[in-house]
Amino acid sequence: MLSFENDYSEGAHENILRRLLDTNYEQLSGYTTDPYCQAAKAKLQKACASPDADIYFLVGGTQTNATVIDGMLAPYEGVIAASTGHVSVHEAGAIEYTGHKVLTLPEHNGKIHAAELEAFLRTFWEDESHEHMVFPGMVYISHPTELGTLYTATELAHISTICHAHHIPLYLDGARLGYGLMSPDTDVTLPLIARYCDAFYIGGTKVGALCGEAVIFPRHHTPKHFLTIIKQHGALLAKGRLLGLQFDTLFTDNLYFHLSRHAIEMAQLLKQGFHKRNLTFYLDSPTNQQFLILKDDMIERLKKHVTFTLWERLDREHTIVRFVTSWATKESDIRKLMDILDQVLETEKRTFS
Amino acid sequence: MLSFENDYSEGAHENILRRLLDTNYEQLSGYTTDPYCQAAKAKLQKACASPDADIYFLVGGTQTNATVIDGMLAPYEGVIAASTGHVSVHEAGAIEYTGHKVLTLPEHNGKIHAAELEAFLRTFWEDESHEHMVFPGMVYISHPTELGTLYTATELAHISTICHAHHIPLYLDGARLGYGLMSPDTDVTLPLIARYCDAFYIGGTKVGALCGEAVIFPRHHTPKHFLTIIKQHGALLAKGRLLGLQFDTLFTDNLYFHLSRHAIEMAQLLKQGFHKRNLTFYLDSPTNQQFLILKDDMIERLKKHVTFTLWERLDREHTIVRFVTSWATKESDIRKLMDILDQVLETEKRTFS
Amino acid sequence: MLSFENDYSEGAHENILRRLLDTNYEQLSGYTTDPYCQAAKAKLQKACASPDADIYFLVGGTQTNATVIDGMLAPYEGVIAASTGHVSVHEAGAIEYTGHKVLTLPEHNGKIHAAELEAFLRTFWEDESHEHMVFPGMVYISHPTELGTLYTATELAHISTICHAHHIPLYLDGARLGYGLMSPDTDVTLPLIARYCDAFYIGGTKVGALCGEAVIFPRHHTPKHFLTIIKQHGALLAKGRLLGLQFDTLFTDNLYFHLSRHAIEMAQLLKQGFHKRNLTFYLDSPTNQQFLILKDDMIERLKKHVTFTLWERLDREHTIVRFVTSWATKESDIRKLMDILDQVLETEKRTFS
Amino acid sequence: MLSFENDYSEGAHENILRRLLDTNYEQLSGYTTDPYCQAAKAKLQKACASPDADIYFLVGGTQTNATVIDGMLAPYEGVIAASTGHVSVHEAGAIEYTGHKVLTLPEHNGKIHAAELEAFLRTFWEDESHEHMVFPGMVYISHPTELGTLYTATELAHISTICHAHHIPLYLDGARLGYGLMSPDTDVTLPLIARYCDAFYIGGTKVGALCGEAVIFPRHHTPKHFLTIIKQHGALLAKGRLLGLQFDTLFTDNLYFHLSRHAIEMAQLLKQGFHKRNLTFYLDSPTNQQFLILKDDMIERLKKHVTFTLWERLDREHTIVRFVTSWATKESDIRKLMDILDQVLETEKRTFS
Repeated sequence: MLSFENDYSEGAHENILRRLLDTNYEQLSGYTTDPYCQAAKAKLQKACASPDADIYFLVGGTQTNATVIDGMLAPYEGVIAASTGHVSVHEAGAIEYTGHKVLTLPEHNGKIHAAELEAFLRTFWEDESHEHMVFPGMVYISHPTELGTLYTATELAHISTICHAHHIPLYLDGARLGYGLMSPDTDVTLPLIARYCDAFYIGGTKVGALCGEAVIFPRHHTPKHFLTIIKQHGALLAKGRLLGLQFDTLFTDNLYFHLSRHAIEMAQLLKQGFHKRNLTFYLDSPTNQQFLILKDDMIERLKKHVTFTLWERLDREHTIVRFVTSWATKESDIRKLMDILDQVLETEKRTFS
Repeated sequence: MLSFENDYSEGAHENILRRLLDTNYEQLSGYTTDPYCQAAKAKLQKACASPDADIYFLVGGTQTNATVIDGMLAPYEGVIAASTGHVSVHEAGAIEYTGHKVLTLPEHNGKIHAAELEAFLRTFWEDESHEHMVFPGMVYISHPTELGTLYTATELAHISTICHAHHIPLYLDGARLGYGLMSPDTDVTLPLIARYCDAFYIGGTKVGALCGEAVIFPRHHTPKHFLTIIKQHGALLAKGRLLGLQFDTLFTDNLYFHLSRHAIEMAQLLKQGFHKRNLTFYLDSPTNQQFLILKDDMIERLKKHVTFTLWERLDREHTIVRFVTSWATKESDIRKLMDILDQVLETEKRTFS
Repeated sequence: MLSFENDYSEGAHENILRRLLDTNYEQLSGYTTDPYCQAAKAKLQKACASPDADIYFLVGGTQTNATVIDGMLAPYEGVIAASTGHVSVHEAGAIEYTGHKVLTLPEHNGKIHAAELEAFLRTFWEDESHEHMVFPGMVYISHPTELGTLYTATELAHISTICHAHHIPLYLDGARLGYGLMSPDTDVTLPLIARYCDAFYIGGTKVGALCGEAVIFPRHHTPKHFLTIIKQHGALLAKGRLLGLQFDTLFTDNLYFHLSRHAIEMAQLLKQGFHKRNLTFYLDSPTNQQFLILKDDMIERLKKHVTFTLWERLDREHTIVRFVTSWATKESDIRKLMDILDQVLETEKRTFS
Repeated sequence: MLSFENDYSEGAHENILRRLLDTNYEQLSGYTTDPYCQAAKAKLQKACASPDADIYFLVGGTQTNATVIDGMLAPYEGVIAASTGHVSVHEAGAIEYTGHKVLTLPEHNGKIHAAELEAFLRTFWEDESHEHMVFPGMVYISHPTELGTLYTATELAHISTICHAHHIPLYLDGARLGYGLMSPDTDVTLPLIARYCDAFYIGGTKVGALCGEAVIFPRHHTPKHFLTIIKQHGALLAKGRLLGLQFDTLFTDNLYFHLSRHAIEMAQLLKQGFHKRNLTFYLDSPTNQQFLILKDDMIERLKKHVTFTLWERLDREHTIVRFVTSWATKESDIRKLMDILDQVLETEKRTFS
């Protein structure tokens, strides 16, 4: 069965697995204090042009969001996010479990608008009864967003300025960051993110690692005793080497960026194929997630040959679906998918003619 | 200064204070195990036509909502509420503090619509990835709502049916319940609420008590060891007699209903006065909270003579404001308010002519 | 039935109830922003010789402990307390519910020893793996303790010095503070507590109020946005006047101290009566709680005539019991208790002779 | 530098790494729904003689304890553990972070005594004020314990019986379970654990895996919607294959048991070497953790050549230290350690003669 379901269907880039074998019997200290974690940190600092950034390694995305957000918020504060944000919808309430509200802003193709953010903050502070409300304590964005879209450098700058004018940090969820950075349609770079954000993470799981997310605090807005907070959240890996070595590998010879660019190239082939076949896009995504609006009977036929995600029901007859490419997608698989589409479209045509 | 700011500006009905004095030196057991709590329970059971309802006394509204909702939800569940619901906006995140998400539905003059509730529940269960989301575990409504509006018996029945079809409890916040029950425009009664809801509370604080809310589980959907849960939430009053005696007094000779009716009558005078003066209502409220849209300069003038609530900014020049009557509102105060209004309106007229 | 069960069996001092009646129809702002709260704060500041202390009013003791401790601790910190401390044993886990561990020290008649505190702190910081442990973030003591005992001024000074050397606050639970201050055997005063502690509360519930505890931060170690934290914990009373007016009354003309002294005098009569009858004290308590070791059959006989607390089973035949006096104890009740004791002791003698 | 610091210093058994490479490009579903997780479950069910046990895969030990304990406890309940238990001391308060108290029993070489457990439970239920206390809701033991000791089958049976008589589950932390099962001094087997416990986990991290713990509910005492609870705790791994494949490998051809036996054989060599050199054991451990009492100056000399854990200061001149063997310990390393010891002991002798 062909799969375009997500970007974590395969294992890890082979370099990672080979180095795991090569270093396997080295006796290393635990809990991310080993030399591979140190080496990875140095490479990440360099890639971010943040030579003294504080860096921590966690295992997964939801875990990282919950630990960072809980760590950075005061108890009376909540985190602002788009209504479609991962923390708003797809983390089983992990943020609320830490005691904090997710305060939602309207989403615009997955993004928040700076103007609406500013209005939200101003309204809060002007409200006579704001002491009885959840204080907005942080802004969460993801890049790419849940819908594969990207902020521009100007948008980031604007959001960052508003956050800092209100003395709250800006946090960027980079679960798929590589795929955002390698999109041809972006002017956002890692150093620029490090400049505008107070915390962000570079996702490993979805970009070629077995697991692992690198949390970066470029300007020492690191929660005090953050290692203990990580432990308290059950997020401190005993064999931290597994994380350090993976990020060290991914940030050697720009592997992370090469893998990401490959996924983007595959996504562009996908997009071209969809366009050529006159399929309806739900929105224009410049990254590795592509959203189509398909008829339910077509979905049923496709599902026999290829897996993809049913994103959201649009109306009685149509559903928004998602096709995802990754660092591991083969060009031949794109061709196979197109063949399947052609067959199914042919069947459709015959059925309705 | 005249005040129409809220329904908790005065102390308590005198019967309550007198009985506090009369019973003061009786030595009673603590933690709501005293005979006055028992007597109050019996009267509440009768008023609700729920002879074997489980009843608990807590001190305040936010506390009650947090304790009941946290007690009734499974850890992976959240509570559904209107986007304007008290638990959604005005409780400083007390629900999230207990680890649960407030899942919001659109509000319609403060109410939720049964059809939208049903769609929300259906969509959740149909979502392929619902195991990664917060489970809807309960429905919260308030009656009257934050905007003073009321559900009809049919609407309550409909919402109740949907909840029970999805095996989740319906919880009604009755902080101002008396004012809802005594509105001339309602077909909802206490027994009917006890029939449709799995838990609700009858508010004392806003209806003539010093403090106190009576939580009622009409059909034994009481969280196990709820007294300990109340204690754990810091909500168990040592001198429980203070709560028992107040509810016993309020539910003797229908005092609760008489007090509530008085507030409604005062609200109707208020409404008539506003209408007569051609003021713009934000919505049509049948209870003791009345919402107007006023110009900001008029608000400024009024504020010199009377206190009321700035509810929400509407546009650059207008604000939604709230005037509230209560069990303690004097008819003479309504007249004073109307005089003030007349003067201010006269000034306005002259200013702009 | 005669009762020596606790110090919250009666209502409130009559001055309080009378003033509730006198001020009943004043229209006051809510949430402890009213003038009575302001007046009470001024009186408390004076009594504590802390003219600019921050003061907040909460409803009950467990609630106060949970809110203050959670407010003052960092997420990775726990609170140190005696193994018999109220927060360790009798609050249904309210502290843990807020996410913090209670770290216990051995108790010595209810008190902690400064030397053991210092050793505990030193051991923690010397432990190679302390980053994997709960950080000691605060010291909790109660005065009087759970067992009615008192710290000396020197002991308090010593504990305070250790706390401050380790940069952690000292918090004193004064649920029964008046009874400690009015004991003849103490050199501890309110100003001295304000000098040594970073936070403490003066208990109203057990010293003549219907409810209410006054939290005092003498040196501005107040958690940021503490009012919102109180609200979030469900501990913000709408009719704050009820708390303000009670503390204003208690701290007018030294009523609080007079009430407390009375309870102590009654406790001394009790103690003399117990001594005279050769009953066995569990420990020597200088305050209003007296602990005896009684045989189980004697307890059974006594229970027919008087209520008191079964504190803890000592062995197969004996139980530690507690008799409590209060601001409301009548001298005639002490005499009645002694008569009952004489009868029961006479019966015992006959039974075993 | 030679290391006996812990059993997670090396990577993973090579079979695991090789299979990661072999299966790397298979496209598998996420979140532990892949066929390797299924296969691993079947093998674990067989090894536990629990054909229909519910099995879940988590990443690390603290995470697993927090998720399982929080999942199985009611909100008003705490978990009983030895005062030295991992959950009591070394998890940075992760259990309290979930809102639950750890109720401690005295430890006896790391173990709890059934009689003390029974007395604790009886005392709780007999206490008049137990509704104001944390309910004992579960018993946590680890096997081997923090001190390397083991429960006998009889002890386990006894504890299990007491738990079930009180209707609370027994949970066993098996972070080092293999090392317990392969000790020559045990009559405890996997099927026996599955018979006596309601939940337990088989640790992978410390027994040859890169990471991963297998949680087993032998009799369906599985918390409802446990996968969502895992997600909410940030403990659901996207590439679940990493966990499934590791356990599948460890439970193929008894690899888990072979690796464990090797560590035990190395520990016995270690023990013999220590005995022969007349070193003082802190206690007699039958598993892979060996505890000695060493003089501080000897520790200082040893630390130049070998790493081990400073467990706890004993007195001014002595410290308890821990040496750990593992699946990866080489016999030649034991010999090297003995040579180092001989040199250091020789130096000591000369220094003091």
